[in-house]
Amino acid sequence: MNIGLDMMGGDFAPLEAVKGVAHYLSEQSASATLFLIGDQQTIEKLTADHKISKEHIHIVPSEEVIGMHEHPTKALKEKQRSSIAIGFNLLATGKIDAFISAGNTGAMLVGSLFSIKALEGVIRPTISTVIPKEDGNTGLLLDVGLNVDCKPEHLNQFAVMGSVFAHLILGIDKPKVGLMNVGEEEGKGNIQAQAVYSLLKGNKHINFTGNVEGRDILTGKADVMVCDGFTGNIILKMAESFYEITHRKKIHHDYLERFNFENYGGTPVLGVSKPVIIGHGISKGVAFKNMILVAQKMLEKKVLEKMKKALVE
Amino acid sequence: MNIGLDMMGGDFAPLEAVKGVAHYLSEQSASATLFLIGDQQTIEKLTADHKISKEHIHIVPSEEVIGMHEHPTKALKEKQRSSIAIGFNLLATGKIDAFISAGNTGAMLVGSLFSIKALEGVIRPTISTVIPKEDGNTGLLLDVGLNVDCKPEHLNQFAVMGSVFAHLILGIDKPKVGLMNVGEEEGKGNIQAQAVYSLLKGNKHINFTGNVEGRDILTGKADVMVCDGFTGNIILKMAESFYEITHRKKIHHDYLERFNFENYGGTPVLGVSKPVIIGHGISKGVAFKNMILVAQKMLEKKVLEKMKKALVE
Repeated sequence: MNIGLDMMGGDFAPLEAVKGVAHYLSEQSASATLFLIGDQQTIEKLTADHKISKEHIHIVPSEEVIGMHEHPTKALKEKQRSSIAIGFNLLATGKIDAFISAGNTGAMLVGSLFSIKALEGVIRPTISTVIPKEDGNTGLLLDVGLNVDCKPEHLNQFAVMGSVFAHLILGIDKPKVGLMNVGEEEGKGNIQAQAVYSLLKGNKHINFTGNVEGRDILTGKADVMVCDGFTGNIILKMAESFYEITHRKKIHHDYLERFNFENYGGTPVLGVSKPVIIGHGISKGVAFKNMILVAQKMLEKKVLEKMKKALVE
Repeated sequence: MNIGLDMMGGDFAPLEAVKGVAHYLSEQSASATLFLIGDQQTIEKLTADHKISKEHIHIVPSEEVIGMHEHPTKALKEKQRSSIAIGFNLLATGKIDAFISAGNTGAMLVGSLFSIKALEGVIRPTISTVIPKEDGNTGLLLDVGLNVDCKPEHLNQFAVMGSVFAHLILGIDKPKVGLMNVGEEEGKGNIQAQAVYSLLKGNKHINFTGNVEGRDILTGKADVMVCDGFTGNIILKMAESFYEITHRKKIHHDYLERFNFENYGGTPVLGVSKPVIIGHGISKGVAFKNMILVAQKMLEKKVLEKMKKALVE
C-alpha cells in the first residue's frame, strides 16, 4: 500500500513530518510505502540526516505551499503545484491509497470532498475526534465541525461511520453509541435530537444506548457520541482549551496529558472513498507517525468498505 | 425587602439552608427579612441551634416536599402545601419579593414561568451560569438549558438580559458579549448563528464583540456568552464534569476549585417579573448564603427594571 504525506503542512514542517516518517518506519508493523510530497532538496537532506532508508519512500517534489490562513478553495485551485493539490491528485489517480496532511484544514476538507468522491451511500462525510475517557479508554465524538447544519439522517449516518471506525481502529467491541443531548430520557432535547433518537433507536447497524449529556462526554457511558458539527466543534475546542489552560497553569497529571491532541493521529475524514487524515497544525513527530499508522490500519482493515456495507445494506 | 427561601430543597436540606441563613445574617450587607418555608418544628429547632435571631426571619410552615425526581407540573399542582408551591404563592401575591430554592429544578422553572409572569417585553425567560475564567474573572453563559430550540430573536434577548446581569450583579463594566460559534469571523457558523450575529451586531443595548469558539469559553474574550439552551447545557455539564473528574483523580488547584459550582449563588431565572434563584441540589451553606445575597442585590440594583428598559426601548 502507498500512503502519501504532505511534508510541508503544519507549524513544524517539514522537520516534524520527517521525524514522523522515521518513527513510523522503525515500527515493526510498518508495511506501507510512503510518498513524501514536498520541497525535494529539503526532504532529501532531512531524510538523509534522519538515516531514512530510500527503500520505503518516494519523494514527490512540490513547488508551492498552501498557507494555514489561505482561502481553501481559491488556494487549491490556484496552487496546483502545492503539496496538498499534488497529494489529492495522486489520491484521485490511484497512485497513493491514502493521504495525510497537517496543513490548511479547509484545503484538506475541500480536497476530500471535491477531488475524491464521497463513499457510496454517504450523504455527508464527517470528521471526528477521539475523546480521552476518565477510565483510560478512548471514545469518539462526531461530527466536530464539518457539518454545522444537519438533518437527522446525517447524524444517523455519523453513528454508523463512527461505530465502524471505533470498532476497527480504536478496537472497541460493539461500541456503545450515545446521542449528545440535554437529558437522559427518550423525548428529551431539541427537535433535532428527538428526531435523531428515533432513527438511532431503529438502526440495526449500531449499538444505540440512549442519550448522553455534557457530563457523560468524558465518562464511559458511550463510546461513540453523535452530534451536529456545531455542538461537536464547541465540545472539542473546549476540551482542547482545558488542556491548554491546565498546561499554562502548570497543573500536571497523566489524565490531563491525554487531552494533548498532538499525541493523536489526526482526524480522518470519514465517508469519503479513500482515507484522508487531517493533522493538527501543531503536529509533531509522534502525531505524524500515528497518522500514518491510522491510515495503514484503515487500509488493512478495509474500514471504508465496511462503512459502505453498513450504510447501503 | 422580603426574600423567601425553600428550606426543604436540596440534598442537604434543611440543615445547609439554615447554615446559609446564619451566614447571610452575619454579613454586614444583609438587609432583607427572610421567609423560611419548611417544616415548622425542624426549622424552629435548627434556627435556635444556630442562634439565629428571630428579628430577621419569619417561619412559614409547609407540610409537603416536592422530591428531586417528581414530575414538575404534576407535583406543583398536586402538592399545594409543598415549600415550592407556597413560595411561588407568596411571590405571586407580593408577600415576598424574591424566591430561592435548591429543590426540584423543573418545579422551580414551571413555577417561575406560570406562577409569576414573564418580564414585559421578554419572549423567553432564560437561565444562565457563571463561568470561571482563566484570568480569575467571572463570565456568564446563557441559555444553559431552558430553551433548547431557539429563534435568533431569543438569543438577542438573552444577550441583553445577560449584559444587564453581568453589569449589575457581576460588576463588569460594559460586558463584552460574544456569540458561541465555530469560527471567529462574521459569516461563520450554522444558519442560526449567522442570523443571531446580524441581530447582535445591530443591538445598541449591548457591547457585541463577535464570535467566541469553544476555546474562548474559559478565556477573557467575552464576558457574556450567548447560545441556545442545547449548546449551553452541554457546555455547562461538561465543565461540571471536568471539575468532578479532576476532583476524583485528586488533581487539586485553585483554578479547578472555581469550577465547584456549589460555591456559586445558584442560577437566577432571568426574564421573569421577580427574582427567582434555583440552587444546585448539592448546595451547601455557602451556596445558600450567596443565593440570598444575589437575590438581595437583584432587588437593590433593580436588575429586572433595567432589563425591561433595555428590552422594550
